[in-house]
Amino acid sequence: MKFTIKKSIFADCLANVQRAISFRTTIPILTGIKLQTNEKGLILTGSDSTLSIENLIEEKEESNHLSISEPGSVILPSRFLGDIIRKLPEDKITVTVQDNFQTIITSGESVFTLNGTSGKNYPQLPEINSAATFNLPGHLMRQAINYTIISVSSQETRPIFTGIHFELGDNQLKAISTDSHRLSQRIIPITIPESLKDKEKVELNIPGRALSELSRLVNDNENISMMVTNNQVLFKMNNTSLYSRLLEGTYPDTTRLLTKDQKTSIKVNAAELGAAVERALILSHQGKNNMVKLSMDNSGIILSGHSSEIGYVKEKINALGFEGENMSISFNPDYLREALKTFGGQDVIIRFTSPSHPFILLPSEDSDNFNMIQLITPIRTPGN
Amino acid sequence: MKFTIKKSIFADCLANVQRAISFRTTIPILTGIKLQTNEKGLILTGSDSTLSIENLIEEKEESNHLSISEPGSVILPSRFLGDIIRKLPEDKITVTVQDNFQTIITSGESVFTLNGTSGKNYPQLPEINSAATFNLPGHLMRQAINYTIISVSSQETRPIFTGIHFELGDNQLKAISTDSHRLSQRIIPITIPESLKDKEKVELNIPGRALSELSRLVNDNENISMMVTNNQVLFKMNNTSLYSRLLEGTYPDTTRLLTKDQKTSIKVNAAELGAAVERALILSHQGKNNMVKLSMDNSGIILSGHSSEIGYVKEKINALGFEGENMSISFNPDYLREALKTFGGQDVIIRFTSPSHPFILLPSEDSDNFNMIQLITPIRTPGN
Repeated sequence: MKFTIKKSIFADCLANVQRAISFRTTIPILTGIKLQTNEKGLILTGSDSTLSIENLIEEKEESNHLSISEPGSVILPSRFLGDIIRKLPEDKITVTVQDNFQTIITSGESVFTLNGTSGKNYPQLPEINSAATFNLPGHLMRQAINYTIISVSSQETRPIFTGIHFELGDNQLKAISTDSHRLSQRIIPITIPESLKDKEKVELNIPGRALSELSRLVNDNENISMMVTNNQVLFKMNNTSLYSRLLEGTYPDTTRLLTKDQKTSIKVNAAELGAAVERALILSHQGKNNMVKLSMDNSGIILSGHSSEIGYVKEKINALGFEGENMSISFNPDYLREALKTFGGQDVIIRFTSPSHPFILLPSEDSDNFNMIQLITPIRTPGN
Repeated sequence: MKFTIKKSIFADCLANVQRAISFRTTIPILTGIKLQTNEKGLILTGSDSTLSIENLIEEKEESNHLSISEPGSVILPSRFLGDIIRKLPEDKITVTVQDNFQTIITSGESVFTLNGTSGKNYPQLPEINSAATFNLPGHLMRQAINYTIISVSSQETRPIFTGIHFELGDNQLKAISTDSHRLSQRIIPITIPESLKDKEKVELNIPGRALSELSRLVNDNENISMMVTNNQVLFKMNNTSLYSRLLEGTYPDTTRLLTKDQKTSIKVNAAELGAAVERALILSHQGKNNMVKLSMDNSGIILSGHSSEIGYVKEKINALGFEGENMSISFNPDYLREALKTFGGQDVIIRFTSPSHPFILLPSEDSDNFNMIQLITPIRTPGN
């Protein structure tokens, strides 16, 4: 195997596939990156066996300066490869794999010889030829992921909660996540293929880590084609493919949580309330409960937080609207901060039922349906 | 105590004095920042008892927007104060200290109440009225520090090596540091006051941490006045004062190390050789000795490094000059990288005596004296 390539392209693609690699893997071969030529160009692959990322560098794309003079494949140590490539002196890199898989990388007056292994030792990625193929606009998929990823659980005690639950059908994709303290839901319109229209809707649970990486890899103006099998999903973009194993189990029904019978509703700017919460949590993080309180009545909205050691804070919130009963509710400010961030600088409606019921955040421009909803469970305090 | 102030000025000055504070201190009062008014304005103080930084915010400087309506002093928790101030909503901040030292900080609709303590509880900074006062141009002092700080030891086993040794006399300041594996020396011209000219030269050992902070605080175009007592040094800049305890003990005589009888001399560009070393250490860091080798003869210079697991690297170095005997020498590449960085992009002369003797780096433009010298001890290898 022998090729020359432009340094920055090679470095960027190595960084892409490297994100799939876990340095805690128990499978030594997966600490490497596979390089393989095919008729189109050079394919890089990284994997942690649950998540795999493949990146094609096309020979016909002139800006890649890729020229393959001898086809083949090799596995090279990923941790150092990216570092070495980035620091090479010249823009042109030549990679030559010898018969024993020792690989010589030259650039200018610098010559690295790395111990490689045969590409044939690399695990085969799953073959995915699925009837269930969906086309998703990249920017919408990214929105759905970024909106719901905040409520994905990092606790392995209930594995199903470490992923985002997707439901595809009725020309929409519904994404839901919850860690049992909060819930995020985002619905985006998609076109369901004719062949799937009469079937039951497709449901699947994709690990949060795979979706974070997908969100990072996809460009806003490209389409993603998503292929689903029993236990795998494949996201195909222009030159990048991301494979992920699916989470097993049945996702709990969350619809009963999303009711519309709240008694109090306030309208505020997400960025303004977010800034006040950011200040309040400087103190609440030092308290033993990490809790702030929101008190609302006709005269206004007050956010307060305290730490018995350091002091307390009170913030008057600029309310753009208030309807319903007076209310006072306590909650984890980190949850509210993250939820508010998903709305950017938009105005939001927050609806409360009681101090002990979950409250919901909706965009003020589209608060009648639940296309975009963040739900947060309060902290019960002795007074409530 | 009551004052109003511009947010960014207050936040910047808090950040300055906070650098002196150690969160591992065993003296609770020193986790706080002291705020005190005087006839000129507001003074902020932070200290870890070895190092103290004082910052004056002048009332007469209009851009500070400082207006003191009630004089006084208070100690506030430093860890949160800076964070709170930075995140306040408006540019104008009002600070009001109540009788019980509870301190109310308001900005826009945000009101923080912090538990403060009396400024009288804060330890007194040393009174320094010294006859030994030196004036140092800020940019030269910073050069001297940044050039020598790399060889300061982080090991507490020989405390004297955790500082930089200064010698003032003969209209020059000599700064020396060593961790016993390498040595840095920088001489800068200064004006010795008439009153001190007939005296013996002043020698002192200043902790590296204090000097790092000094280098960060000083502006290139300001002068530093340095006052020395038996066990303290005070650096005064425009509005900032830095106090440091001196290290006790006698600094070893290092002059015998700095000889001129080398047998081999090469001239290279510091940045080019530095880049090659950076690449080589990707591999050497994985080897058990962290060692690279430089081989020189008339045909050229080769830098090589290896890790038995990953592979090896050879780099041809673009030599601008070579004189003397063939030489091959092995050393810790981290030392060479840091030494080369102190020369920026300059050309340097490197002089070698033997594979088992320390080698020295000098600027090629001023290689005849030792105003600027980095010395590195090689690693003895079985072959040498």
